[in-house]
Amino acid sequence: MSILVVGSVAFDTIETPNGRADEVLGGSAAYFAVAASYFAPVKLVAVVGDDFPAHERAFLASRDIDLTGLTVSKGRTFRWTGRYHEDMNVRDTLDLQLNVFSDFSPVLPDGFRDAPLVFLANINPGLQAGVLDQLTRPQLIACDTSSHWIEGARPELEALLKKVDMFVINDEEARLLSGERNVVRAARKILEMGPRTLLIKRGEYGVLLFSPNSVFAVPAYPLEEVFDPTGAGDSFAGGFLGYLAHVNDLSEASLRKAIVYGSVVASYVVEDFSLRRLRTLTRDDIERRYRQFVSLTEF
Amino acid sequence: MSILVVGSVAFDTIETPNGRADEVLGGSAAYFAVAASYFAPVKLVAVVGDDFPAHERAFLASRDIDLTGLTVSKGRTFRWTGRYHEDMNVRDTLDLQLNVFSDFSPVLPDGFRDAPLVFLANINPGLQAGVLDQLTRPQLIACDTSSHWIEGARPELEALLKKVDMFVINDEEARLLSGERNVVRAARKILEMGPRTLLIKRGEYGVLLFSPNSVFAVPAYPLEEVFDPTGAGDSFAGGFLGYLAHVNDLSEASLRKAIVYGSVVASYVVEDFSLRRLRTLTRDDIERRYRQFVSLTEF
Repeated sequence: MSILVVGSVAFDTIETPNGRADEVLGGSAAYFAVAASYFAPVKLVAVVGDDFPAHERAFLASRDIDLTGLTVSKGRTFRWTGRYHEDMNVRDTLDLQLNVFSDFSPVLPDGFRDAPLVFLANINPGLQAGVLDQLTRPQLIACDTSSHWIEGARPELEALLKKVDMFVINDEEARLLSGERNVVRAARKILEMGPRTLLIKRGEYGVLLFSPNSVFAVPAYPLEEVFDPTGAGDSFAGGFLGYLAHVNDLSEASLRKAIVYGSVVASYVVEDFSLRRLRTLTRDDIERRYRQFVSLTEF
Repeated sequence: MSILVVGSVAFDTIETPNGRADEVLGGSAAYFAVAASYFAPVKLVAVVGDDFPAHERAFLASRDIDLTGLTVSKGRTFRWTGRYHEDMNVRDTLDLQLNVFSDFSPVLPDGFRDAPLVFLANINPGLQAGVLDQLTRPQLIACDTSSHWIEGARPELEALLKKVDMFVINDEEARLLSGERNVVRAARKILEMGPRTLLIKRGEYGVLLFSPNSVFAVPAYPLEEVFDPTGAGDSFAGGFLGYLAHVNDLSEASLRKAIVYGSVVASYVVEDFSLRRLRTLTRDDIERRYRQFVSLTEF
């Protein structure tokens, strides 16, 4: 089963306590697509500028990602510059240049409209809703958002949430959206807004899955060094939905395994800047760490 | 197998966003002893004032806790007053009266010296070391500490750590003691200080167990309401060591199950002020939530 992702492709300039990387590949859809590509074919819808280099396009294509929906517009690709604190849960945006992304209005190519699994990465919820209108037979629609839209486009976001099956956010966003500090109460309120399933990402503390009748909690893989946390959440979502597409099964048991696979991929991504670690990562590496995850958590 | 605990018995006055409780039973040794008593016989060494009421003594005795080592000194029992913030991971100490606890120098009654399992709750590390000198054949010595001693009595604490098997602290204390922000690196440094096994408590995010050759991570039981977090860490330690005493086995597999039992007991304790929830809690309640823990975490 293939997966459609709609979101951003960007160049990031990142400072962490461990170092600095300039103009490296980033963006929610890029992280998601490469992570998901380990498990299933991916169709990418995003926009880049005419400065987007051939070697990055070739990298994405080498991961069996269908780039028919990657529009090249006249101008520069989206740029983000950020700096992480010593506590890498905190970061400052130093510079943001939307460039060609400011006019992004996703149009699905014909062969993309019948995608069964869809991930709406973090963009304007109005645009996310516009994607839904173009789908002919989705089986599972998952979406992400950010504090920016919770604060600035709540009505659009709430309208969208009535139409999605699965919502994937972090704990801060869950608190902001629900007005509840307690994560269980926050989850209940958000589930009442529409989605059947809610995933709450808690960074180094792991992930919580709230389904109608159960809760699943999994810790994060404990890493001795987090080199660059950028893209961890989108890579998690990519591994998660990639695995679901691969097994073609949306049972609770598969959702749980998928969360572990998503956590494994995210744990690799943060080991280096940008998507560098995924340029050499193999499916065997993923299986090895999955087994380590089992022994990390079994009792 | 019985457990010896040395620590404090106190009266707490607690304000949380949910309410207030005045002069309720507390103290590290009280929480630990009652929690452990669900699994194994407990011997308590602590000091109270002559104001300590008969009904609290009767409550402790009703839990099969041997009170031979509970000294009654002329004067008032230790008092602590604290206020929790909206974010209950943060609290302020509003008042602290050591009272009879200021002269506490634990002396083990004869029948206590051959205790196989020992928990040194959070007191001055010099006093903790003094307890070790009185033991005749300990099989497992576990200890706790606090930021207060890490900052104010580091040499004494480091000397103690060379003599204990197991160290049970929270993540903030681990960072402070090791000077490392990353929890895995912090754990490695602390294990080099002496203990064979390290448990790091992460509050609502669960517990990490570092053994010589493995890491175990377990999330906390997700509660819709944390009423009063006081004593959660000591109750966790009580359930944990209580289970180990009960099964009389210190294998990795038993340590892991023990951590889940400790987490279960702690999850009940925080449902009400002070030790109130444990006045009615049954062993069946514990087993029921243990099974819920299995379904919370299995994949």
